Amino acid sequence: MEKIKVGIVGGTGYTGVELLRLLAPHPYVKLQVITSRGEAGLPVSDMFPSLRGVVDLVFSDPATVDLTQCDVVFFATPHGVAMSQAPVLVAAGVKVIDLAADFRLQDVAVFEKWYKLPHSCTDILKQAVYGLPELYADNVASAQVIGNPGCYPTTVLLGLAPLLENDWIDYSVPIIADAKSGVSGAGRKAEVSTLFSEASDNLKAYSVAGHRHQPEILAQLKKLSGNEAVNLIFVPHLVPMIRGMLTTLHVKLNAEGQQQSLQQVYEQRYHKELFVDVMPAGALPETRSVRGSNCLRMAIYPQTEGYVTIVVVQDNLVKGASGQAVQNMNLMFGLEADTGLQVLPLLP
Amino acid sequence: MEKIKVGIVGGTGYTGVELLRLLAPHPYVKLQVITSRGEAGLPVSDMFPSLRGVVDLVFSDPATVDLTQCDVVFFATPHGVAMSQAPVLVAAGVKVIDLAADFRLQDVAVFEKWYKLPHSCTDILKQAVYGLPELYADNVASAQVIGNPGCYPTTVLLGLAPLLENDWIDYSVPIIADAKSGVSGAGRKAEVSTLFSEASDNLKAYSVAGHRHQPEILAQLKKLSGNEAVNLIFVPHLVPMIRGMLTTLHVKLNAEGQQQSLQQVYEQRYHKELFVDVMPAGALPETRSVRGSNCLRMAIYPQTEGYVTIVVVQDNLVKGASGQAVQNMNLMFGLEADTGLQVLPLLP
Amino acid sequence: MEKIKVGIVGGTGYTGVELLRLLAPHPYVKLQVITSRGEAGLPVSDMFPSLRGVVDLVFSDPATVDLTQCDVVFFATPHGVAMSQAPVLVAAGVKVIDLAADFRLQDVAVFEKWYKLPHSCTDILKQAVYGLPELYADNVASAQVIGNPGCYPTTVLLGLAPLLENDWIDYSVPIIADAKSGVSGAGRKAEVSTLFSEASDNLKAYSVAGHRHQPEILAQLKKLSGNEAVNLIFVPHLVPMIRGMLTTLHVKLNAEGQQQSLQQVYEQRYHKELFVDVMPAGALPETRSVRGSNCLRMAIYPQTEGYVTIVVVQDNLVKGASGQAVQNMNLMFGLEADTGLQVLPLLP
Amino acid sequence: MEKIKVGIVGGTGYTGVELLRLLAPHPYVKLQVITSRGEAGLPVSDMFPSLRGVVDLVFSDPATVDLTQCDVVFFATPHGVAMSQAPVLVAAGVKVIDLAADFRLQDVAVFEKWYKLPHSCTDILKQAVYGLPELYADNVASAQVIGNPGCYPTTVLLGLAPLLENDWIDYSVPIIADAKSGVSGAGRKAEVSTLFSEASDNLKAYSVAGHRHQPEILAQLKKLSGNEAVNLIFVPHLVPMIRGMLTTLHVKLNAEGQQQSLQQVYEQRYHKELFVDVMPAGALPETRSVRGSNCLRMAIYPQTEGYVTIVVVQDNLVKGASGQAVQNMNLMFGLEADTGLQVLPLLP
Repeated sequence: MEKIKVGIVGGTGYTGVELLRLLAPHPYVKLQVITSRGEAGLPVSDMFPSLRGVVDLVFSDPATVDLTQCDVVFFATPHGVAMSQAPVLVAAGVKVIDLAADFRLQDVAVFEKWYKLPHSCTDILKQAVYGLPELYADNVASAQVIGNPGCYPTTVLLGLAPLLENDWIDYSVPIIADAKSGVSGAGRKAEVSTLFSEASDNLKAYSVAGHRHQPEILAQLKKLSGNEAVNLIFVPHLVPMIRGMLTTLHVKLNAEGQQQSLQQVYEQRYHKELFVDVMPAGALPETRSVRGSNCLRMAIYPQTEGYVTIVVVQDNLVKGASGQAVQNMNLMFGLEADTGLQVLPLLP
Repeated sequence: MEKIKVGIVGGTGYTGVELLRLLAPHPYVKLQVITSRGEAGLPVSDMFPSLRGVVDLVFSDPATVDLTQCDVVFFATPHGVAMSQAPVLVAAGVKVIDLAADFRLQDVAVFEKWYKLPHSCTDILKQAVYGLPELYADNVASAQVIGNPGCYPTTVLLGLAPLLENDWIDYSVPIIADAKSGVSGAGRKAEVSTLFSEASDNLKAYSVAGHRHQPEILAQLKKLSGNEAVNLIFVPHLVPMIRGMLTTLHVKLNAEGQQQSLQQVYEQRYHKELFVDVMPAGALPETRSVRGSNCLRMAIYPQTEGYVTIVVVQDNLVKGASGQAVQNMNLMFGLEADTGLQVLPLLP
Repeated sequence: MEKIKVGIVGGTGYTGVELLRLLAPHPYVKLQVITSRGEAGLPVSDMFPSLRGVVDLVFSDPATVDLTQCDVVFFATPHGVAMSQAPVLVAAGVKVIDLAADFRLQDVAVFEKWYKLPHSCTDILKQAVYGLPELYADNVASAQVIGNPGCYPTTVLLGLAPLLENDWIDYSVPIIADAKSGVSGAGRKAEVSTLFSEASDNLKAYSVAGHRHQPEILAQLKKLSGNEAVNLIFVPHLVPMIRGMLTTLHVKLNAEGQQQSLQQVYEQRYHKELFVDVMPAGALPETRSVRGSNCLRMAIYPQTEGYVTIVVVQDNLVKGASGQAVQNMNLMFGLEADTGLQVLPLLP
Repeated sequence: MEKIKVGIVGGTGYTGVELLRLLAPHPYVKLQVITSRGEAGLPVSDMFPSLRGVVDLVFSDPATVDLTQCDVVFFATPHGVAMSQAPVLVAAGVKVIDLAADFRLQDVAVFEKWYKLPHSCTDILKQAVYGLPELYADNVASAQVIGNPGCYPTTVLLGLAPLLENDWIDYSVPIIADAKSGVSGAGRKAEVSTLFSEASDNLKAYSVAGHRHQPEILAQLKKLSGNEAVNLIFVPHLVPMIRGMLTTLHVKLNAEGQQQSLQQVYEQRYHKELFVDVMPAGALPETRSVRGSNCLRMAIYPQTEGYVTIVVVQDNLVKGASGQAVQNMNLMFGLEADTGLQVLPLLP
């Protein structure tokens, strides 16, 4: 097979360097171009010495580079960049995978409310696919434009999918997603609040009054359940670790749901998925068990009064971002989902 | 005032050294004796160099020391030790503050089920006071034996007290306490699971199927609400920080509760409490804002459908353990609650 | 005694908040004014919730505030600010303690070379005292302007003073100071290199080719030894901890020095110093043993071939900055050196 | 090529799980057997969930397993185990790679002094090869028994080899190796001193009076330099990070050495080495730039008076232990050195 010519827009953030780590050794990928407004001319390995001897690209100026030479372009950029460049790329037949939010929310009003940006290409949005392969593999395979899911939504949706798909949730009680993320989720931006001396040896909740991933999750919950009544209380927390995300889901089952052996149901649902691991009953998923890998693990705990607690872990930069993006790319080009994604977790 | 002669049983753990940090400079305390089975004969400051020049005690052998010379004895020991020694001390008129669980649970059957120990002095248990001064100040003041609360229960109970006392919770929906603790909560025991290389850069839930603090919290919830129907889903997590505890409470309010201005209610409830800080609406409590201090902070967030989220932070070793114990001692000896406890949080 | 009216210029950094933590409960201090260009009008406790209920000051605009009402002004500002404001304050009889470098280096050319700033008040510089009280207590007591030492210099100079004062070093071999600092030493500035995700779980040397503290240390080494031949190789490292500094000194002793019992010499030299702890032979100083306190600890290890290794630890924000500044203030106002500085280390 | 049948003795420590991470996906390896005295019968992936779905071995009882069926056996065990089992394996033609110290020190008296163990197979020791492939590739390729180097020695020896081989060091001044290690170097043993709450947010030197790696390094320094006069001051430090080792070397060059362009010399010396990266002049190696990879990076800084500082970083568990062991295995079986070792560093 001929190699896939890959472009990366915005390669200086954490999702950018993570794409490079995964794509550089990918057997069917040729890294063609990587752009950075601020760092044009700088060798990539000067910024990321971990890639010395592995990636010999130099950051290109996005103003002058021609991305239509690529087969696929990843946007590891702030919200709003992908939608400004997607029309030209789509017209040229280039596939687009946006790691930001431009193509995640089909409801334009919701997007504009939460991201404070007018949406500039709603026609492309309409054909864009929400890139959660375990739920939408076929759509992903045939997509030209992917809205790569947010990190938190990936944990919530995969944690609940078997219940949603079977209509086993009592929607009169809101789903509670108590979510915890490592600091790399905040990106590689110079900000006081994520300095080592601020974030280390500390824990806080944030965006309790409203986080941008809440409407994204809610839209998918409604879609998957076919039920507009579903409700969600979503509280994210910032944990002093670099990578890793753990989401604790508290759900009330309906009468039918309460009669199921959920352990078995979950195991069967994800049996064929290469990147979802339903752990044995009683197991305690740890974020380090997936550090650096595209794997997502979960465990199911029956609780009192028909409630169930589901704990889901992933590496927020891999399955929660760049790894999932590469998984999407693999499907879009007819490759096995795990091509180039077999890197094992780093433990300890 | 004459100084209080203080004894500490089991001084080599984290609650022990924390008692020393708080009691050594306490203006009305004389550290009389500190025991350790394993370290008898060792100067305390050899084990804890932070106390060099401050504490010149030597660990005494518990088998030979006479604790009845003390005015009060703190037990910073494993569960079961305090109840074995309390009868002699109580008979001699010595006050007892147990930082373990021996005197926390009035229901002996519940104690024995969760701690796998027969309770050996149920008569003393009956007169023991649950040492949460913001709820039971008068009882504490007149107590001879204190069961110092668990760290998690302190956050849950102070976070919910205004709702419980006013009967504003809809008990048809379980209270969810999604709690997160720093690693010092596991104590200073040589165990693989709390090694730096296991616990650092990692996050996990633990004891999801049942944690010993669950029955303790539940007993108090029932007592404070006067309602046997109250239910609780309690999920603790282990966070890679030394000190600090953050508990996220999700509660459904009843019709009356939904009509209240909770911010105002909470501020009034805790207005006179020296160690409880209700933060302004929208604030985000961080564990580091109480690091090393006896302060507990909380914030209240109204949610959808009559739910409210309450985020509570404390230092698990201070307000969650040794600081609360000293606060109890102060009340028991007629001192201001904050005597010797005015140490400010260490931030950053 | 009447309270000392204290002003703090630049209160939003880590040395600023640390001054507040130490000065707010100081029995002879009245916090009069604290300035911030960027945060004028903001209550201090909004920025630092750890001070809620303790500090009720609001940040003042430095352009409009009159600092001559103070008895002493601390500058917790970037290099260059103190020297621009010192003339007015000195003329008004206000004492000045600069935590930056403006008054540390008597050689103006050296200052200007390393700090890339013209020195604007060299006359005040001439009378300024290098505020290392264990070496220059008398000068400090009578000083009007203090150049508070850098964090690294404090460890090196106190670690070597007994050898320098006795002329026991073989200066034909450079002194090697292999120094390690926690990240708070880099300040509370929004920079990528000190983000949690960059600095955590990582170690690096920095400024190997030349750090600003090198000339400061060297000037003092020459002064204390009276020997121009002394030389220094200084390599600082950045360690993933918030607070703490450990400096490992490797020195060759001369013939006379090799005949000394250094353990005894050091113990005698620092016997009366409240904040210097010479640990017993063989002890291993840990940074956490001084966390949050003004104490500096050291241990002495004889090595092969007449070499000696000295390990020194301190909290870089306390003895390495704000605590030392308060110690200087105490001496300048005739107080005991440890007034308000008796806070114990936080361990664990 | 037929797959290499691999046995691992002592698979429950960090070097054990790291061998599994590297060997499980190795294209020419068949993991045949892994033993554990304490965990016999337990599936490996129960202990290390990071290997779920990847390693399906069960820990075998070392008392009953026949290791002579293997082509090579790695010992990831305490000192003394390998030498007790090596004779049988060597007699059966099995290759042995010991990650402990049994085959590192040719001087039996030195071994017995530092490891407090009698050496039970000195004949095998004599033919054992010190497995530092960049120095002894040919010997490694033909070896039957490898003493895999200690983590610290690897950094010191590769950092100094170009100087030693060219005889450019002034041995009248001791070499100073100020070394810093992440906590995983202490192994996966339940000990108080490496608990998270002890080691986090802390820094200390340890074994200043003498560390077991000192004689190992010294023996190699003498061998490589051919000079018995070489001396070494070695001070290790414990840094709060899981993985990573940084060694700062301070060396005095002799007259000839002072005339060299060391940057160029080092680059040429290591040009062909797949796992040694000489960074450009002025670069600052960070441990995270090699996290999880077998790469070792260094930078060279000329200093005053003919001194040079060399900073070397590696992942202590990979190039400092298990990765180097696999590199040795590759050479012993005629494979390219980097076969199965091309995993990229995990940054951030």
